[in-house]
Amino acid sequence: MSNPQEVHVFVPATVANVACGFDILGFAVSRPGDEVIARLCDKPGVHIKSITGDGGRLPLDVARNTAAVSALEFLKHIKADKGVELEIIKKMPLGSGLGSSAASAAAGVYAANLLFGSPLEARELVAFAMAGEKAACGTAHADNVGPALLGGFVLIRSYDPLDIVSIPAPPSLFCTILNPHLEVRTEDARRILRKDISLKNAITQWGNIAGLIAGLLKNDIELIGRSMQDVVIEPERALLIPGFSGIKQAAIAAGALGCSISGSGPSIFALSVSVESANRISEAMKEETDRLGISSDTYISPINLDGPVILSKR
Amino acid sequence: MSNPQEVHVFVPATVANVACGFDILGFAVSRPGDEVIARLCDKPGVHIKSITGDGGRLPLDVARNTAAVSALEFLKHIKADKGVELEIIKKMPLGSGLGSSAASAAAGVYAANLLFGSPLEARELVAFAMAGEKAACGTAHADNVGPALLGGFVLIRSYDPLDIVSIPAPPSLFCTILNPHLEVRTEDARRILRKDISLKNAITQWGNIAGLIAGLLKNDIELIGRSMQDVVIEPERALLIPGFSGIKQAAIAAGALGCSISGSGPSIFALSVSVESANRISEAMKEETDRLGISSDTYISPINLDGPVILSKR
Repeated sequence: MSNPQEVHVFVPATVANVACGFDILGFAVSRPGDEVIARLCDKPGVHIKSITGDGGRLPLDVARNTAAVSALEFLKHIKADKGVELEIIKKMPLGSGLGSSAASAAAGVYAANLLFGSPLEARELVAFAMAGEKAACGTAHADNVGPALLGGFVLIRSYDPLDIVSIPAPPSLFCTILNPHLEVRTEDARRILRKDISLKNAITQWGNIAGLIAGLLKNDIELIGRSMQDVVIEPERALLIPGFSGIKQAAIAAGALGCSISGSGPSIFALSVSVESANRISEAMKEETDRLGISSDTYISPINLDGPVILSKR
Repeated sequence: MSNPQEVHVFVPATVANVACGFDILGFAVSRPGDEVIARLCDKPGVHIKSITGDGGRLPLDVARNTAAVSALEFLKHIKADKGVELEIIKKMPLGSGLGSSAASAAAGVYAANLLFGSPLEARELVAFAMAGEKAACGTAHADNVGPALLGGFVLIRSYDPLDIVSIPAPPSLFCTILNPHLEVRTEDARRILRKDISLKNAITQWGNIAGLIAGLLKNDIELIGRSMQDVVIEPERALLIPGFSGIKQAAIAAGALGCSISGSGPSIFALSVSVESANRISEAMKEETDRLGISSDTYISPINLDGPVILSKR
């Protein structure tokens, strides 16, 4: 079977940090997400034909565009004799804490890999998508691109060497996301964090991340809920999200297993075990956000166990 | 079936901390361990008939003896109308970092529970054994008494409220323990630790504990090995154990998956996947310790998945 000349892919949004898993854990949702159409072309390198849905905010410069950089690094790696043309279709909010740049970075390399007959496995694409993340954020983190490419929960045990571990998740888990229309700059979210933490809080945190991983792998829903506590990062970053505490309380009162900041915010996510529950939580979070006079979007989806989707190829 | 009048139990040594799991993780080995003989008596309360094997170091005072305190707390809880007489048979070194006081504390309450027809499950006995630990150490920690009573790997996710999670371990795991004849006082081992740690090291540590838990539950031996790294506690406590670095290197060179300090030391443990490997590691660690002119004992055992053993009852 010959390789496709054109592919159209969807890559999902991701929730990084996951309460107690700062910088090491993320998971994929089913929506929102980004799309990329990629076409083989004779001119070597990567060429951005268009970007839509970004309100003109994303760079058309190949060297600074996440999707283009990840695709280009891949092309170099396989010593491609052809080039790739990209149409980037943003279908999720930028700067929302939902891994927008990661979704585009993952989509770029995922699509490029398909065009060349999938010489690499999804797991092997993570490093290229990280290069795309670096172009956008300055740091090559993997806790969004990992789950965006692999689906499910993904643990980044180590960066040096890169050690990526898929964590099977209970199929019953649902995620509610509230994206308040506030701006939290990733630099601010980083800068607000203290460089040192107390050993006591660190122990609490590693007890919780151990409990969360055990809960996911043992399919122990209550343990997942008990473990979703962040005593280190959330208390500091919550200061950047007006009303966070009330919104979280509303989610818990509506039946969420746990609720925390998605990535560096301002989006807030909550886990639950049914679509009905996820809907109730969404309504409760939205109601509280409305009460504060902050507009917002909400998303409900199961945990996305599959990662990217091929929408069409020809 | 009527309750026994006398029971003779064995409770195993335990390895707490387990590299990256400081204060939250422990596991049980099959040897060494402590024994307790407990007898029903008409006089209420707990009475210590004898302690052997301790070189006269352990208190006969019921209020300060770990085995007696744990048994006594249990008797109060069940409002027992009879008393218990204890013979405590120490068969493991004191102050070795192998959970000696925990083994006795667990044995006291485990035996008492049997004498009264096992009204409580092993999991429910942990709190009483913690009271025994507190009598000996001043703090009621659970990372030794938990695995001593439950066997296998035990995660203490939280102390408030107490949240104890059994982590099934791959049945192929073996443990080598080297107990160098050095004294490390638990107070010193506590005092040497910094009260604050860098966020960077904390993240490395929670990545590793997440990896270790995932490795145990996924039966991924290589992941267990890669995750057995402690960048927070071991570098500080190693200063209290002369030759630690060389002994660890010898264990790794001999095929250990990982090697770290057991509890607060001075014992050193290493994990591996066969009894042959565990033996080779034992010889290598011992040889290095001999070379340093430090005498030592070694123990080899599989992970003890069952916890306490009833040696006899009548």
